[in-house]
Amino acid sequence: MSVDYLEGFFKPSSIAVVGASRDPTKVGHQLLSNLIARFKGRVYAVNPNADEILGVKAFPSIASLPEVVDLAVISVPAPLVPSVLEECGVKGIRRVVIISAGFKELGTSEGIRREELIVDIARRYKIRVVGPNCMGIYVPKTGLNTTFLDPKHMDFPNHGNIAFISQSGAFGIAVLDWAAMRGVGISKFVSLGNKCDVDEADLIEYLLTDRDTQVITIYIEGVDNGRKFIDSLMKVTPYKPVIILKSGRSEEGARAIASHTGSLAGSDVIYDTVFKQFGAIRALGMEELFDMAIAFSMQPPAAGNRIAILTVGGGSGVMATDASVELGLKVPKLSDEIVNKLRKVLLPIASPYNPIDVTGSARDEHLVEAMEILIRSGEVDGILWIPYFMAPGITEELVKKFVSRLREAYNELGRLIPVVGAVTGGRYTMIKAHEAEELGIPMFPSVERAAKALWALYRYGAWLRKCGTFNDYMDNFIKNIYLKRGH
Amino acid sequence: MSVDYLEGFFKPSSIAVVGASRDPTKVGHQLLSNLIARFKGRVYAVNPNADEILGVKAFPSIASLPEVVDLAVISVPAPLVPSVLEECGVKGIRRVVIISAGFKELGTSEGIRREELIVDIARRYKIRVVGPNCMGIYVPKTGLNTTFLDPKHMDFPNHGNIAFISQSGAFGIAVLDWAAMRGVGISKFVSLGNKCDVDEADLIEYLLTDRDTQVITIYIEGVDNGRKFIDSLMKVTPYKPVIILKSGRSEEGARAIASHTGSLAGSDVIYDTVFKQFGAIRALGMEELFDMAIAFSMQPPAAGNRIAILTVGGGSGVMATDASVELGLKVPKLSDEIVNKLRKVLLPIASPYNPIDVTGSARDEHLVEAMEILIRSGEVDGILWIPYFMAPGITEELVKKFVSRLREAYNELGRLIPVVGAVTGGRYTMIKAHEAEELGIPMFPSVERAAKALWALYRYGAWLRKCGTFNDYMDNFIKNIYLKRGH
Repeated sequence: MSVDYLEGFFKPSSIAVVGASRDPTKVGHQLLSNLIARFKGRVYAVNPNADEILGVKAFPSIASLPEVVDLAVISVPAPLVPSVLEECGVKGIRRVVIISAGFKELGTSEGIRREELIVDIARRYKIRVVGPNCMGIYVPKTGLNTTFLDPKHMDFPNHGNIAFISQSGAFGIAVLDWAAMRGVGISKFVSLGNKCDVDEADLIEYLLTDRDTQVITIYIEGVDNGRKFIDSLMKVTPYKPVIILKSGRSEEGARAIASHTGSLAGSDVIYDTVFKQFGAIRALGMEELFDMAIAFSMQPPAAGNRIAILTVGGGSGVMATDASVELGLKVPKLSDEIVNKLRKVLLPIASPYNPIDVTGSARDEHLVEAMEILIRSGEVDGILWIPYFMAPGITEELVKKFVSRLREAYNELGRLIPVVGAVTGGRYTMIKAHEAEELGIPMFPSVERAAKALWALYRYGAWLRKCGTFNDYMDNFIKNIYLKRGH
Repeated sequence: MSVDYLEGFFKPSSIAVVGASRDPTKVGHQLLSNLIARFKGRVYAVNPNADEILGVKAFPSIASLPEVVDLAVISVPAPLVPSVLEECGVKGIRRVVIISAGFKELGTSEGIRREELIVDIARRYKIRVVGPNCMGIYVPKTGLNTTFLDPKHMDFPNHGNIAFISQSGAFGIAVLDWAAMRGVGISKFVSLGNKCDVDEADLIEYLLTDRDTQVITIYIEGVDNGRKFIDSLMKVTPYKPVIILKSGRSEEGARAIASHTGSLAGSDVIYDTVFKQFGAIRALGMEELFDMAIAFSMQPPAAGNRIAILTVGGGSGVMATDASVELGLKVPKLSDEIVNKLRKVLLPIASPYNPIDVTGSARDEHLVEAMEILIRSGEVDGILWIPYFMAPGITEELVKKFVSRLREAYNELGRLIPVVGAVTGGRYTMIKAHEAEELGIPMFPSVERAAKALWALYRYGAWLRKCGTFNDYMDNFIKNIYLKRGH
């Protein structure tokens, strides 16, 4: 079955919420409330005991719905799910999200049988199922939201170019809430739940052609169909970065997975090898997953591992060097020619070597001119800059000047070199960091995290070169990301 | 010379600012402005061309000051520093902070000679010197602030029990600004600069008896006097945790240090061995340094490495397990007795093993009662809890209930077991996390960071046991931290 079929999960014109409830304490109430908050299509409630819920017309059964909806969201007690799914099939509904829990994850024979039953029904009617036991789908662009958390206690992120797939619903929701606070935009979020049908491989493959998605992030505990998973990576990683947070690295973690989702975590060495061999990038925690994703969402891959560190603070330059070298990046000595060029534009007390330390006495132009020399030097493949926005000589205009000169240097050079930033600081610094991100320069709260993000851009660049798709990716990045920025 | 002498650097009654300037663009202006903003003692400006600056009476020379001040802060051009220091000596001033740059850090023979000259003068007059080439000192409690950054572009943290010593001034300032935003309180901040006299060892030893300081954090690039440094660790680590971020781990980083501060980074293996052998805890980045410090500032050390993970989200429980095990913590299987007790109080779908997954359907009491069982079990030495404040069954009262029951359990048990939290989430979650921290439970933004903080509590506990000071430390912790909390 082609993954094109999945499109309807993200851009439905009509949705039925089966199990919509008038009782505000019920999942089926909050779910409907969240859905109608921003979804512009047609929404129907299915509930035999109501005429209308939250202003949405209710129908006693799926059969009585006035149309064959694009998507049914099922939130009824688990024992009722099979018959509801059967009704969907009879009605002709072909996409279903099952929120209800009480299946395989129980670990009981009853739960397992119930899940087998819904798989049988889905196959019989060619219904594609997301779930069961999941939070479903959130798509900011279309306003689709099948989650049932109270928006008093969490926020939802805006539209952006990062897709996020999570096997854990709670973790997925926490990440959405975090992303909203961090200002990270999401293209599509899918909570996989028990993945009785649609799994990570389907979604990875689908997202390849999704124009709203630049980078794919995934949290998984285990993969059931290894061959299918590898196929999806082979198809997608030459064109879009796939970053995976796979838990169960430790024996104890794997044991915990067995009791959490019932997935077989499998040998971590095998996962690690598969990720490396098929170009997926592995993250070892939530912060790392999204640090890398943010870098890909704004910056091009690096053509090599030689980086320049451009800093206002000497200590941060040293720490950034340690972190970069430990990751396998190179912080090379620059040629005499470049050192001399840098010396000419920097303060006498500055260090024109690499890391380039413009010092705390620097003014905006020292950072800007040094960056330009580095970009044009041909001696580095990426830049980690560490502005100190509180330094006395740094003005409120630094970010604008830096980005505008960066753009000029790129134009003259004819190609892009990734630039990521690190900023430790407080409120004012965060305002300036946000400004830089609005202009496409990702800013991380520590040099270690910035170095890891830059490392990911290098690793993926190396993978693209191996695949022979580096130039294609770069062309697409320039067209879809770089040229679309409003500056 | 005894370190008691250093007390006057932090609690002076009178300060002279030499080089105070009427020109708002000058360091000597902003420095005076920052100092008088909160310092309650007597302040004098020394400037031959002014009668008064920012409302502070100015004197033409040090000799003409109406008293022998406790502390002189020197911010004049480097060539003038030796004669100013000489004047301080003649006047009888015995504590000096030299902000001015232009000494050894230049790497020139002139700079080195100039630094040797001020060291000679200081020795001759028995003057203790902080700096040169530094940001000086910040003490929230006394309002002492010798930094010269514009408060429009940075904030200063409140009083707290974490001391921070930084060889890098810019990094130190950035951390203060970050600490203010994060809500981390600082007892004393010292920017060491070239440390021509007062160095990290002096301060470590001084802070041992500083009642405002519970934990000592340090950023250093190199130690000049290894024996003295080791002596200070030997004296202090059996009583207070010393956490060190030492850069120059890599060859390239060490090279960068040589051009930053002129310190010899030395072999990293030697540093690492010294830290381990003498009980200092090594942090590998700024976030780690302060994550650990925050843990020590609120929680007792762990008596062993067996931890329980108590989570609302199954995925987070797995990730926390991985992170903990990778650090050398144990996530042990619990006894049948404890598993049965947990099973009785938790939902049927919960997992009563370790990690204990109360599930996203949990209510407050599931977390609270499971915690109580774990604390009393005798089977774990620490708890990593992962509440999901957005979960439907979790109320706004969770934190209060949790901390109050924790206190009851402690009272009955007769000893404390460290508890740290991990919370991924957005605005509402951050409000609740802050509430938990106000009540003494540190909350970290990822399970990996929480695990590392808990690991530090374990490592230091093991060190204290080795030193035979575990019980003393715990008694002091209970008296100075635990019993002083307002709950």
